[in-house]
Amino acid sequence: MRLRNKPWAQDKLNEYPQYVPTDPTKYKGKWQSRFEKEQPIHIEVGSGKGQFIMNMAKAHPEINYIAVEIQTSVIVSILEKQIEEALPNVQILHGDGSDLSEYFAPAEISLLYLNFSDPWPKTRHAKRRLTSPLFLKQYEGILPENGEVHFKTDNQGLFEHSLESMSEYGMYFKQVWLDLHKSDFEGNVMTEYEEKFSSRGNRIYRLEAVFRSNK
Amino acid sequence: MRLRNKPWAQDKLNEYPQYVPTDPTKYKGKWQSRFEKEQPIHIEVGSGKGQFIMNMAKAHPEINYIAVEIQTSVIVSILEKQIEEALPNVQILHGDGSDLSEYFAPAEISLLYLNFSDPWPKTRHAKRRLTSPLFLKQYEGILPENGEVHFKTDNQGLFEHSLESMSEYGMYFKQVWLDLHKSDFEGNVMTEYEEKFSSRGNRIYRLEAVFRSNK
Ligand SMILES: C[S@@+](CC[C@H](N)C(=O)[O-])C[C@H]1O[C@@H](n2cnc3c(N)ncnc32)[C@H](O)[C@@H]1O
Ligand SMILES: C[S@@+](CC[C@H](N)C(=O)[O-])C[C@H]1O[C@@H](n2cnc3c(N)ncnc32)[C@H](O)[C@@H]1O
Repeated sequence: MRLRNKPWAQDKLNEYPQYVPTDPTKYKGKWQSRFEKEQPIHIEVGSGKGQFIMNMAKAHPEINYIAVEIQTSVIVSILEKQIEEALPNVQILHGDGSDLSEYFAPAEISLLYLNFSDPWPKTRHAKRRLTSPLFLKQYEGILPENGEVHFKTDNQGLFEHSLESMSEYGMYFKQVWLDLHKSDFEGNVMTEYEEKFSSRGNRIYRLEAVFRSNK
Repeated sequence: MRLRNKPWAQDKLNEYPQYVPTDPTKYKGKWQSRFEKEQPIHIEVGSGKGQFIMNMAKAHPEINYIAVEIQTSVIVSILEKQIEEALPNVQILHGDGSDLSEYFAPAEISLLYLNFSDPWPKTRHAKRRLTSPLFLKQYEGILPENGEVHFKTDNQGLFEHSLESMSEYGMYFKQVWLDLHKSDFEGNVMTEYEEKFSSRGNRIYRLEAVFRSNK
């Protein structure tokens, strides 16, 4: 996601430590303490401007949500939404999806979302894809046994790669949608990228992948 | 595949026992003896009229091929092609894909193809799909360790089901194509159904799935 440089962005994040903890590693194993209610925590890795996580949080008050995003300049857009809405079940984590085990204890997270992750189409960049094995290992480490990753994208190459990479890792697919918007899937919450690319006529792919307990 | 009833079909098969063995169970563990050369055996389950297997056999004289097909009236079309071509690396097996372990010894088959298998879209018919668990168990039983199933179809629902069913069974996907004819896949040999449905603009899906040795 390319955005104008926003030098004031970090200052803004610092102003709202109740929404964006200054040192997220401090909450490892203690994220429940940052929410109003103790209830399952779902995270999205690479939340972008936060449309998905904010609308999910409104639709599912029985779940606590954490947006994990690496870019300061993008997090600011999530924060602005949260300043406005002040949802008790949303937290924002400024960090890298490849460091999740520094932020979360094993099984602290109940479900992990990936939406329209950067495709990194070149083979030499394959390791940067959020569905490549080193990332999957991070996800597995913070999810419970049989934990799930729910992933959508319009990018054909990334979806093909993810089917390969996740199954090779040992995950199985509980469900796969090869054309989500023409399916009977209910309760879909659109992301910014999903609105943009589906309006151009792109197919949206989705999968629910499960980690196996005894690999 | 619906075809006119062909009462003479069984008589015709009986006339060519060198191509269509009368009792295929007799060759369990001995299929090599029916070919000119001893070399890896690949089978297609549900060969239809045999365009794929005949063209594969011409393109790959280093492989022995067996067409497995359940319908007498359809096998006749494969047989007619083989009477004409008399390829030394083609055999035809009149039988059911759910009985493969009666026809083949463990690891007797090196690779298994499924092409445009009947989709059986209704959930109550799911067990009839050639990528459902009982069929996969049969395939596993006649392939070597890390044996592969190569599958193509234009049917979105069947492909989604197959990604789920095969991964749940414990297989992983070495490669997945979500739009085969727009990919850089080389050496694709078209089946009858593939020609028909791709000419209507349907996408062709393909996957290469691998059985895990230690599940
Ligand atoms: C293409 S955008 C998609 C945004 C949003 N999920 C959507 O669907 O509209 C991908 C986002 O992932 C973020 N991202 C990329 N790599 C990341 C990583 N390793 N950890 C956390 N976020 C990451 C990017 O900064 C970007 O905001
Ligand atoms: C839709 S046709 C496809 C034919 C061909 N593979 C193609 O791509 O043009 C499916 C074929 O599978 C055969 N078939 C269905 N179930 C089978 C089974 N259990 N064992 C063997 N063949 C089967 C049918 O008789 C039919 O000829």
